[in-house]
Amino acid sequence: MADILYLDHAATSPLRPEARDAFLRTADLGGNASSVHSLGRKAKLTLEEARSDIVSAVGAVGIGGLVFTSGGTEANALALHQAQNYDHVLMSAGEHDSIYGAVSDANIVPLKATGDVDLVALEAWLAKPGRPFVALMLANNETGVINAVAMAAVLVHAKGGWLHVDAVQALGKIHIDFAALGADSLSLSAHKVGGGQGTGALIYNRDHTPKALITGSGQELGLRAGTENIAGIAAFAAALKACHGGADALSSAQKSTESALKALGVTILGEEAARVPGILYIAQADWASNLQLIHMDMAGICVSSGSACSSGKVKASRVVAAMGRPDLADKVLRISGGWTTTAEDWQRFYDVWSKGYEVYLKRHAKELV
Amino acid sequence: MADILYLDHAATSPLRPEARDAFLRTADLGGNASSVHSLGRKAKLTLEEARSDIVSAVGAVGIGGLVFTSGGTEANALALHQAQNYDHVLMSAGEHDSIYGAVSDANIVPLKATGDVDLVALEAWLAKPGRPFVALMLANNETGVINAVAMAAVLVHAKGGWLHVDAVQALGKIHIDFAALGADSLSLSAHKVGGGQGTGALIYNRDHTPKALITGSGQELGLRAGTENIAGIAAFAAALKACHGGADALSSAQKSTESALKALGVTILGEEAARVPGILYIAQADWASNLQLIHMDMAGICVSSGSACSSGKVKASRVVAAMGRPDLADKVLRISGGWTTTAEDWQRFYDVWSKGYEVYLKRHAKELV
Repeated sequence: MADILYLDHAATSPLRPEARDAFLRTADLGGNASSVHSLGRKAKLTLEEARSDIVSAVGAVGIGGLVFTSGGTEANALALHQAQNYDHVLMSAGEHDSIYGAVSDANIVPLKATGDVDLVALEAWLAKPGRPFVALMLANNETGVINAVAMAAVLVHAKGGWLHVDAVQALGKIHIDFAALGADSLSLSAHKVGGGQGTGALIYNRDHTPKALITGSGQELGLRAGTENIAGIAAFAAALKACHGGADALSSAQKSTESALKALGVTILGEEAARVPGILYIAQADWASNLQLIHMDMAGICVSSGSACSSGKVKASRVVAAMGRPDLADKVLRISGGWTTTAEDWQRFYDVWSKGYEVYLKRHAKELV
Repeated sequence: MADILYLDHAATSPLRPEARDAFLRTADLGGNASSVHSLGRKAKLTLEEARSDIVSAVGAVGIGGLVFTSGGTEANALALHQAQNYDHVLMSAGEHDSIYGAVSDANIVPLKATGDVDLVALEAWLAKPGRPFVALMLANNETGVINAVAMAAVLVHAKGGWLHVDAVQALGKIHIDFAALGADSLSLSAHKVGGGQGTGALIYNRDHTPKALITGSGQELGLRAGTENIAGIAAFAAALKACHGGADALSSAQKSTESALKALGVTILGEEAARVPGILYIAQADWASNLQLIHMDMAGICVSSGSACSSGKVKASRVVAAMGRPDLADKVLRISGGWTTTAEDWQRFYDVWSKGYEVYLKRHAKELV
């Protein structure tokens, strides 16, 4: 079998060397950040340095607090826990399952055909009485499309609402400025930036500290009980430091791949919107996601049909359907590069995919005869 | 400064080499256990092997399910989340803060002077009307005292209740048999057995599957949303495998230390009860915990005054007070050995402690003059 080519960074990005080193350095030191002895104090110092680094990396110095969680999903759950103090919950149709699937009575704000949230529709929802809790992701996990969060924040705050922003897929890919976004809370995940699974954070505006979801002991200033995963947290901070955050354009290799695919008639989902670099979401009429995935997998290329699906099955994309393309919802393929990805990787993807598509077309033509 | 001697395994046990290897092997493989491609399937296999190993290690094969969490605290929180289906909550006065501090309206079952829960008092509470949710730890985190959980299970089930057992401090130290304990749920933590911080598990009786606390996406059969920390989970399983579980006596070095301390008039908390090996909880009249800790810390010995305190301050022990010794509650010191601990370490502890006590006595005598 050929070398595995991993192009599924949006599902999970392999542990960066810098994160691996930080993890081992911290784990080998040992210590519980709540212990008063020398090793405990060193663990506490590591914890607070990581907290400060991450707060700084997302532009939250001075206004934002940070509570470490076990990942983006728990950070989202902690944010949603605040919704009980609001009159109704609004979220975009593009939200990740950890938001979308976690609130049963939310009102759904549609996406535009371009893949970003429909702010006119949001405004219409906000016109209804009551203080809203609104969840709006910064970048979509399937399309990479970026939402106009700062604009939404103004609308939400005009109604006395809370705006939660899931920034898991944006982190490390575009510059994040918590203050400029105007969000009340922001979710981050370490493993999407090569910082290791099992660690995340919720950034919150210090003017309204969240109520804890996991309680009991007093870690994280009472905002999240449980011994902090110091090594994982140190790895998270190290990975974030290693990101070339602020890249605001698709890489040239990805761009070339997109052009070549379009020449074959491929649809690039979200093409008309601003997107984070690294994520490419394509559909080609009638070549089903699961067949594409099998073809790519057999050629040693790891890609996805959308978000990683916990059932291990390939589901039609709810996001693509929300973009007004239900016809493509089970024909999509997500290719996502990251810190391991080279220009040659994009080329190899293109070669294997286009070859597969050619074979598919021939077989399909025969079947049609 | 002398080499650091770490005798605070009950707060957190350093990462075992076997766990370190498993972590790196799995992290370097990469992959999200929900991805359908080859790396995802390998991650899934690692996840399910770890699950199976841990279920087996705690005697839950056939009757127990396992949901991975971010640690013992989240496992306890998930268990407590089930209490909403019961009429009242009972817990022992010795429960860890992640239980004790997490339910505001619980009824507290007292401890006996020996440190284990008072089953007669439990029975009296259970005589009250309604189905109870009962939390009872297997081994106390300060004293190491073991509760008669199997007996409590019979009482609780006679009333149609749920018995949750926090086995965090028992895991790896004594043999755990979920089936024999008769518990409905059981909390485990990886870092207390040298498996790394940030991973834990809730074992549950499959006859009544718990309701999820963190929801949204479908991981862990819908019982816990969020990308699984595969490397951490593999490390957890590897650490547990490396434990010499089933030791049912204190090590001879610990025993000798206890005898030598008793010759100085030291009180061994929980001495009359069955205790897990490795944890030694002492008090000596009038030598305050914080002064003992400073003395030990300056000599490079990491010990604790009880449970690791999130505030970084030394608090009086609620557990010691519940054992009827409030006079000793701020005079205690917990020494806890683990996989790194040798007979020489116990000896060094004794030498440093007894020397410190001698100095304390002289100073104290002068002050009295």
